[in-house]
Amino acid sequence: MSFIEKLMRATRKNKSLLCVGLDPDPERIPDGVSVLEFNKAIIEATADLVCAYKLNFAFYEALADEGLEVLKHTVSYIPDDIPTIGDAKRGDIGNTAKAYAKAIFTNLNFDATTVNPYLGFDSIEPFIQYHDRGVFILCRTSNAGAVDFQSLSAEVEDGGNHPLFEIVARKASQWNIHGNIGLVIGATYPEELRAIRHNHPDMPLLIPGIGAQGGDLALTIRYGVDSKGEKAIINSSRQIIYASREKDFTQAARLAATELRDQINYYLSTLNT
Amino acid sequence: MSFIEKLMRATRKNKSLLCVGLDPDPERIPDGVSVLEFNKAIIEATADLVCAYKLNFAFYEALADEGLEVLKHTVSYIPDDIPTIGDAKRGDIGNTAKAYAKAIFTNLNFDATTVNPYLGFDSIEPFIQYHDRGVFILCRTSNAGAVDFQSLSAEVEDGGNHPLFEIVARKASQWNIHGNIGLVIGATYPEELRAIRHNHPDMPLLIPGIGAQGGDLALTIRYGVDSKGEKAIINSSRQIIYASREKDFTQAARLAATELRDQINYYLSTLNT
Repeated sequence: MSFIEKLMRATRKNKSLLCVGLDPDPERIPDGVSVLEFNKAIIEATADLVCAYKLNFAFYEALADEGLEVLKHTVSYIPDDIPTIGDAKRGDIGNTAKAYAKAIFTNLNFDATTVNPYLGFDSIEPFIQYHDRGVFILCRTSNAGAVDFQSLSAEVEDGGNHPLFEIVARKASQWNIHGNIGLVIGATYPEELRAIRHNHPDMPLLIPGIGAQGGDLALTIRYGVDSKGEKAIINSSRQIIYASREKDFTQAARLAATELRDQINYYLSTLNT
Repeated sequence: MSFIEKLMRATRKNKSLLCVGLDPDPERIPDGVSVLEFNKAIIEATADLVCAYKLNFAFYEALADEGLEVLKHTVSYIPDDIPTIGDAKRGDIGNTAKAYAKAIFTNLNFDATTVNPYLGFDSIEPFIQYHDRGVFILCRTSNAGAVDFQSLSAEVEDGGNHPLFEIVARKASQWNIHGNIGLVIGATYPEELRAIRHNHPDMPLLIPGIGAQGGDLALTIRYGVDSKGEKAIINSSRQIIYASREKDFTQAARLAATELRDQINYYLSTLNT
């Protein structure tokens, strides 16, 4: 089954566009709970409420020696019918990108990953060669520094000028011969999200930036979903997994996830889809 | 001691601008030799000929479970007076970039790393906060896909138009308040290398792309070094470490490294520095 099929099935089964980001920070998890216990408990508390889980590799690499084991075990706790996104944001020359793709898709068996476009096509091609996996290209990221380069107005072949992130999206669309490319667009830039969805009506969009980062949920849903109210993966990490750092953290995470999924579905219900 | 001081000392002690890339591919190393034995042997055969070693993380992550151990042991085999560059090309939002910086500089103790600029300042700031480490920002990479985005002509605040990689270099220069930023420029684009060195006479440049990738060595030296014939780190990986895949691979690697260092020094001697 392809990533996109698996995503659609989980979305429909759980009636959810919510993706929970499993980004554990030892300083923020409850005392006496290991990172792995924490992740397992969060997964068990939320697996019927999400369309996907996203694991940002940085938080696992920061755990040093045990990081890779924790990452692998965490993935093994995720039910088989929920897609996993390895948020690695890799980008390297072809020969090297091939090694990264192997690490993420073959060794760790993620259903999808994120990649950085700065190095161009040959840095992305080894990933899209895994036809059944999803490849989300960073387009417009959710952080303040996104404007430093992604907003620059650049000239394209036809002579027009467009912001760099729109040129990235256009190229991503041209490269999407296997139908497994998506885009990462931060919820913190709603107008940019609207423009990208308008130009790319069928692409899955991975949307971080609501919650702790301040993105507006109503606008994110209105601008982010496709014509059927799908193909937007709304990621939230800190708002869910750190809803409480007391003994009730699993209940608090479940409550936060339920509320967020239901809010998303409420905003969806107000659209003419 | 700062990265740049350590680099200068190694450069002068070994009379070398050569950086050997320790990018092991199990399919290309001699039969019966483990990756770790291979790296150790290459280091012992070349440590008096280089100004630095660069380890591309992809090749270690592709080794799966043993990758991190091999990476750490490899670093431990590198003599203390030779700087180590963790070629990770990370780029993520501030909160996450901080975790990557911790993984690379604190846990793995690399002297320098490479970062991707696409996410802007807050993705790079956590790295440059380690004042004694070096941070090489990808500017003009050595691969064919570099032209997809890095060559786009974009408008900057003063109204002029410049290729994106030049804008990245200019921003990198503005961000260089701790004096620990360098740039990655591929040897495969000599005119771009010349332009960057002209505009940034004091910045250390990490230059991959000679050898297997086809960059011209004479032009790389002429355009890449500073006014003293230094601050260019000429990386070669495959040409050195796979000089032979027979039992004589250490001698072959030493010979290849000696020849390349001496060629570099010959081209340096022809310059008016």
